[in-house]
Amino acid sequence: MISSARLADICGINPAQVRKDLTYFGIVGVRGVGYFVKELLFETRKIFGLDREWRLGLVGVGNLGWAILRHAQFMSHGYTFVVAFDGKPNRIGTRIGGIEVAPLEAMNSVVKEKGVEIGVIAMKPEFAQEVADMLVSAGVCGILNYAPFQIQCPAHVFVESVDFNLKLDILRYRLTSARSRGRRIRSRPL
Amino acid sequence: MISSARLADICGINPAQVRKDLTYFGIVGVRGVGYFVKELLFETRKIFGLDREWRLGLVGVGNLGWAILRHAQFMSHGYTFVVAFDGKPNRIGTRIGGIEVAPLEAMNSVVKEKGVEIGVIAMKPEFAQEVADMLVSAGVCGILNYAPFQIQCPAHVFVESVDFNLKLDILRYRLTSARSRGRRIRSRPL
Repeated sequence: MISSARLADICGINPAQVRKDLTYFGIVGVRGVGYFVKELLFETRKIFGLDREWRLGLVGVGNLGWAILRHAQFMSHGYTFVVAFDGKPNRIGTRIGGIEVAPLEAMNSVVKEKGVEIGVIAMKPEFAQEVADMLVSAGVCGILNYAPFQIQCPAHVFVESVDFNLKLDILRYRLTSARSRGRRIRSRPL
Repeated sequence: MISSARLADICGINPAQVRKDLTYFGIVGVRGVGYFVKELLFETRKIFGLDREWRLGLVGVGNLGWAILRHAQFMSHGYTFVVAFDGKPNRIGTRIGGIEVAPLEAMNSVVKEKGVEIGVIAMKPEFAQEVADMLVSAGVCGILNYAPFQIQCPAHVFVESVDFNLKLDILRYRLTSARSRGRRIRSRPL
């Protein structure tokens, strides 16, 4: 068994929040003891859809796309890339780690044929919206966007963004404001 | 000039929020017209610390670290990698895109010598906490963590995480719950 205190500790949040969140999904622990680990794993896997493989399609096989495909963690976690798309003629028809690179124009048919559920965009920002539109037209309802551009999609499509620069900008902002606070304090007259 | 409505449109938020946020930083527009673009750029660059280069140190030069270093966007945005660290003897002393790979044990002195301000962790999750501790000991106050592990740092250190799997898990959860809602609706008796 595992206590909500231990779970909270692992997640860096408070135990009350852990209990509240699990209760929301109908998972109730034993008072003063905790949760059955086996039940917890079974239920959370079901909630997150971890009980089956998800089929991903990569759009853009430049440096970033290449790294994403090679990033082994993706594979070990219930995700499988079934196809990649690119616009550059010299990349079409090649294979990257066993994954076929198809032309962008074939997206509509290939997405259906291969059963792509989540599209991963690793294109330059100026093409992000265009390929997002193509993915949505092809029937994809989940998009993981690596391009530093805020794409717009219909309400039934879920979009998550991974923006390196944004994260760095947040850090930079925090460091800058922490330092200017420090300076302000130090420059106060004694 | 640019209106708060136009800015809001670009950012995908509402105009009142744009005005509120800018006012927070002392940036006030012309009523009914908008903001002077030149002033807005100058002030926001200062706020985000974009008015100077920031020195990054990479920890881990596996596939992911390699991709991060090669990802040209980093460079064009006011960030410069000045050093990389790795634990594997065969990688030490090599250069990746002009960046020297130093041993982990040298972190303390190299961070000071090269003036590293932000550490970028691209290690396996089991080593993330250890290298985070090393970065903090060496005096780094900003960490961008790519490892799928929630690192713990002292309060004066700012941590941002880029977790691919987490983003995919969020998408998967949303798609799963949207589908089960759909199924529930369809299976209702007429």
